[in-house]
Amino acid sequence: MSKTKEVGAVRFAPVILAGGSGTRFWPRSRRARAKQVLTLEGERTMIQETLARLEPLATASDAWVITNAWLHDVIVEQLPKIPEKHVLAEPCARNTAPACALAAFLLEREAPETVLGIFPSDHVVADKKRFTEVIAAGVKLAAAGANIVVLGVKPTRPETGYGYIEQGSSAEGGTDGIHVHRVKSFREKPDMVTAETFLKAGNFAWNSGIFLWSAKTLTAAVREHAPEMAAILEKIAAEYGAKDFAEVFAREYPKCENISVDYAILEQQSAKGEGRSNIYCLPADFGWNDLGSWASLHEHLRDAEEDNVMDGATTGLFAIDASGNYVYAPGKTVALLGVEGLVVVETPDALLITTQERSQDVSKIVRAVHESGREDLI
Amino acid sequence: MSKTKEVGAVRFAPVILAGGSGTRFWPRSRRARAKQVLTLEGERTMIQETLARLEPLATASDAWVITNAWLHDVIVEQLPKIPEKHVLAEPCARNTAPACALAAFLLEREAPETVLGIFPSDHVVADKKRFTEVIAAGVKLAAAGANIVVLGVKPTRPETGYGYIEQGSSAEGGTDGIHVHRVKSFREKPDMVTAETFLKAGNFAWNSGIFLWSAKTLTAAVREHAPEMAAILEKIAAEYGAKDFAEVFAREYPKCENISVDYAILEQQSAKGEGRSNIYCLPADFGWNDLGSWASLHEHLRDAEEDNVMDGATTGLFAIDASGNYVYAPGKTVALLGVEGLVVVETPDALLITTQERSQDVSKIVRAVHESGREDLI
Repeated sequence: MSKTKEVGAVRFAPVILAGGSGTRFWPRSRRARAKQVLTLEGERTMIQETLARLEPLATASDAWVITNAWLHDVIVEQLPKIPEKHVLAEPCARNTAPACALAAFLLEREAPETVLGIFPSDHVVADKKRFTEVIAAGVKLAAAGANIVVLGVKPTRPETGYGYIEQGSSAEGGTDGIHVHRVKSFREKPDMVTAETFLKAGNFAWNSGIFLWSAKTLTAAVREHAPEMAAILEKIAAEYGAKDFAEVFAREYPKCENISVDYAILEQQSAKGEGRSNIYCLPADFGWNDLGSWASLHEHLRDAEEDNVMDGATTGLFAIDASGNYVYAPGKTVALLGVEGLVVVETPDALLITTQERSQDVSKIVRAVHESGREDLI
Repeated sequence: MSKTKEVGAVRFAPVILAGGSGTRFWPRSRRARAKQVLTLEGERTMIQETLARLEPLATASDAWVITNAWLHDVIVEQLPKIPEKHVLAEPCARNTAPACALAAFLLEREAPETVLGIFPSDHVVADKKRFTEVIAAGVKLAAAGANIVVLGVKPTRPETGYGYIEQGSSAEGGTDGIHVHRVKSFREKPDMVTAETFLKAGNFAWNSGIFLWSAKTLTAAVREHAPEMAAILEKIAAEYGAKDFAEVFAREYPKCENISVDYAILEQQSAKGEGRSNIYCLPADFGWNDLGSWASLHEHLRDAEEDNVMDGATTGLFAIDASGNYVYAPGKTVALLGVEGLVVVETPDALLITTQERSQDVSKIVRAVHESGREDLI
C-alpha cells in the first residue's frame, strides 16, 4: 500500500457517496447496477473515475465509500485499492446528512484534523488538472480553521433540478489564485422563474455536492445543528472495528433523520450570516457535469458535427432526416428516419423509448414498474 | 391430393404473386424473408393466409406462385399443398405484367378456359366469407366471355400510394347480387390534389391488384398489347416440364419489358372505351388492407381502447403520456414515456426508429444500407 499523501501538511480523506437507486438511467441502470458502477463514458466506471481523479490528492487507502447493500460488492470489486472495511453499506437510505456525518465521526476518533472531502460518485470532470488545483486549494482552506468549503458550478441555464449557492463577498486574498467567495445562503431547487432570476443575478452557483471540511468541524456542526443524529452516529462510530458493529449499525442508523447535508447542516450554519458561518465557495470550474439524465449524457457525448449519439458500440448508423437522438443499442445497426430528440435505450430485457425532454422523468417509469411487481426489472 | 374444385362449372386457378423485395417492413423483412413469408398478423404467414382464403374456391394443387430466387425455398416449405413445379422463381424481377402473363401462357397450353386469378400475397382480408362470395362472382363473370374483372376498394382517404380505377356505368344485372361497374379508365398513383378530387368524385376505387380473367383472354390481350412479351413468354411456356426449361426461363425472361400489368395490358385495353373493353370492376368490400407500411400494420392491429401496439409477444408495456406508437421488440418489456406516433422495430441485428408518417420511406433506409455494402442487413 502506498504512503499516505498530504495536501500541504494536511491529511485528506475522500468520502465517496455511492448510494444510487439506479432509476435515472433505467433500463441500463438497476438497483444492483446503478449509474456509479456503469461505464457511461470512457472505459472506467463512474466510481472508478471518481477515485482516479482523486489519486493525485489522496491515497486510495485513505478513501471511504458510503453505499448501499445492492452496490456494496460490486464497488469492493471495482475499487480494490480502497480497504474493504472503508466501504460501508447503509442499512437503509437516509440521504446525505447521516452518510457524511458518519464518516466524520469515524475519522474524528483517529485523526480529527483530517480534512474530509465529500464526493458524489456519478459526476464527470473534463479538466482533471484543474480539479486537482481547486480541490487542493479547498483542502488547505478547510484545514485553516473551522472552515466549511463548498464547490459551486457557474450556471449556464435556469436549471430547476439543482440546489443553488448564493455567494456573498469575496474572501480576502483567495487561495492559490483561486477566487473564493463567502456563502450568503443555500437555496433549494427553485421553480423556473426563480431559477431565471438566479441566473440573471450572477452571484448564484449550482451546488455541486462537493464539500470539504475537517472531521472535527463537521462533527461539531452536526452536534450543534442535529444533536439527535450526532448521538446515534457516535454510538455507531464507537463500535467500528468491533464485533458488534454490523448489528449496531443496522439497528441504530435507520433512526437517523432522512435529510440532506445541505438542509441539516449547511442551511443552518449559513443562517448565522456570511461573516460568522465560515462557509466558503470555490469555483467548480473543471468541466463538471452530473449526468443527471439520458439527455444530460447525450449533451456530454455529442459533438458539434454529429448530434445523433450512438452509444454502446453499435455496429452502424443510418440516419435520414434525423437529429439530436441518443440511442444505446449494443451490437445493433441503428436506422433513424425522420425522428428528432429521441432517447432509445435497449437492454437484453427492456426497451425504453422517450424524448430528451422527458428523459428526466424516467423514474416515473421505474416507479410504475416497481408498483406492478416486476422486481426483475428494478 | 384433393379433387379439383370448380366455381360453378368453371375451373379456377389462383396465381399468387410473391416477388417482394423485403424493404417495406425492414428490418423484420429482408430479401430472403419478405413480408409475404412473415407472420405480421395472426398465426400464419401472409402467403399461407392468402392460400387459405382461396381454398373454398380452388384446390391448392391448381394454384401457382410466381416468386423470386430468394423466397422460392421458404415458400415451397410454407405451402406444401402447392405442387413444387407450380412455384416459379423469376430469374429477375420484371414487375407484374410478365409474371401474370407467364401464368396465362402456361395454363393456355393445358386448359385455356381456366379462369386465372391474380392475387398479391401480402394483403389482409378481414371478411373471408365475403371474399369468397365476391371472388366466386368474379370468376363466373370472367368465364362468361372475354371479360376482364378487376377488384376495386372504396377509398377512405386521398391515398397517393395506390393506382385508381375510374368506374363507369353499372353493368346490367350485376352478379349474385354484387354490384358491378364497367371500367372507364385506370389511373396511375396520383398527387395529393388529384387524389382528393378522386375521393370527392365518388366513382374512383383503389386498385387492389386482384384481377380475374380466363387464360385465353389474358394471352389474347398480351398478344394484342405487348406482342414482344407474348413471343418471349410463349417460348418459355413451350419448354415447361422439359429438361431445358430452367435454362430457357433464365435466358429469355429477362428480355421481357419491366412493366406492370396495369400499364401494359389494362390501360391499353381500357382505352378502347368502357363499352368495348370488357373490363368490369367488382367491389373488394371484404375488409381489404395491403399492409403497405409499418403505419398500415399499426392501423390494422390497434384497437380503439389501446392505440399503442406492442407486437411480437413483448413481455410487458409501461406507457406514460404515450399514444399511437407501434413497437416490435420480441421478448422485451417496453417503456414509453412522452412519445407519440413512433414506429420502433427491433431484430437481433438492427433497430429501426421512425414515425408512423415516415414509415413509408423505410425503403430509403434500405437503399442506404445497400449502398454502404452492408448486404448482411438486406
